[in-house]
Amino acid sequence: MADHISDAVVRRLPGYYRHLRELEQEGINQVSSQELGARMGQTPSLVRQDLNSVGGFGRQGYGYDVTRLKEGIGHVLGLDHTHTMIIIVAGSIGSAVARYPGFLKEGFITIGMFDTSPERVGSTVGDMAIRDMKELDRFVADNTVDIAVLAVPASAAREIAKQVVDLGIMAIWNFAPVDLKVADTPVKIVNAHLSDSLQVLSFLMTSGEIE
Amino acid sequence: MADHISDAVVRRLPGYYRHLRELEQEGINQVSSQELGARMGQTPSLVRQDLNSVGGFGRQGYGYDVTRLKEGIGHVLGLDHTHTMIIIVAGSIGSAVARYPGFLKEGFITIGMFDTSPERVGSTVGDMAIRDMKELDRFVADNTVDIAVLAVPASAAREIAKQVVDLGIMAIWNFAPVDLKVADTPVKIVNAHLSDSLQVLSFLMTSGEIE
Repeated sequence: MADHISDAVVRRLPGYYRHLRELEQEGINQVSSQELGARMGQTPSLVRQDLNSVGGFGRQGYGYDVTRLKEGIGHVLGLDHTHTMIIIVAGSIGSAVARYPGFLKEGFITIGMFDTSPERVGSTVGDMAIRDMKELDRFVADNTVDIAVLAVPASAAREIAKQVVDLGIMAIWNFAPVDLKVADTPVKIVNAHLSDSLQVLSFLMTSGEIE
Repeated sequence: MADHISDAVVRRLPGYYRHLRELEQEGINQVSSQELGARMGQTPSLVRQDLNSVGGFGRQGYGYDVTRLKEGIGHVLGLDHTHTMIIIVAGSIGSAVARYPGFLKEGFITIGMFDTSPERVGSTVGDMAIRDMKELDRFVADNTVDIAVLAVPASAAREIAKQVVDLGIMAIWNFAPVDLKVADTPVKIVNAHLSDSLQVLSFLMTSGEIE
């Protein structure tokens, strides 16, 4: 059933997961679609529809068990197992990803960091050594790497994406300001464009409300 | 007309802007809805519909003038004027935002950076001095601050959001992993949750395709 979830629902699931984690931290065990919708700024009927599409979890008149629902969504999102990541390169965004404690808490473990700059290679970000890009092939051969985080300039993104796909890495989290696509492969790519959300804020400031 | 653009269209506009900038850099002057749709992974009819809702820009049979369309979307997004930003605090994400050259290119100018940590206050990120949070009130009184970038832990986010709103800042770009809302004010808030897009990637790796 998780194979047939719409793009819009998938994009809302991390929000449900975050709010359910907060409810759990607040010691709340049960939540209704009304309450969850109010927290998320969505209608109760959209909440019920979204949660039905990932497997239900609710009981008519009783609402949702917070922990069970959180774990159910975590399972659909693949957060009930760990993922290993490498980060290319160790610039400002790559370093922020390496240092951000939230990813590790959700099971995303950075196991390597790579750069081409002689000033960076050999130094560290937190506890993580910055390796030479020349060692990438060997590292990927010796370690299970689930995700390559690309934090490279736009001009280098397509070439490095091709390189990591050729090495057999099956998922790319791309911060370069280009939309990466790798045609005719089962490689999964998500583009994380920081500018996009800043531009949405700028829109709201300039052109008013979103309908 | 920009007042009546749906949330989904607004979220796609930065993508159009990015692709049009790329086309411009490639020296391409005219683009059809077919070509633009192919680049963005969308149908030509959705492209025409989206662009109509922000004001047209196309001519039947001629397609779109790349520069004119880019500038038109830039205008709707408010990218034809500059915005000043302050960043709170100077941790990994705050520092990445301060260092990232793309924001400045799009007219988002960081004019101040604040922290509470005695180790950080007085040092710099790039050329930017890190000021004491105690100076925030005075700084906001003395300078025009359009946007507060919150890169604080979840536990501090709501309190600091209230503080910047009380100081009269009208827009918040929030990186803390909570959904900030400020009720009953015209303050604009966009939540940028890095984990969300990583979780979408994890979903794709775990549960397969999005429909």
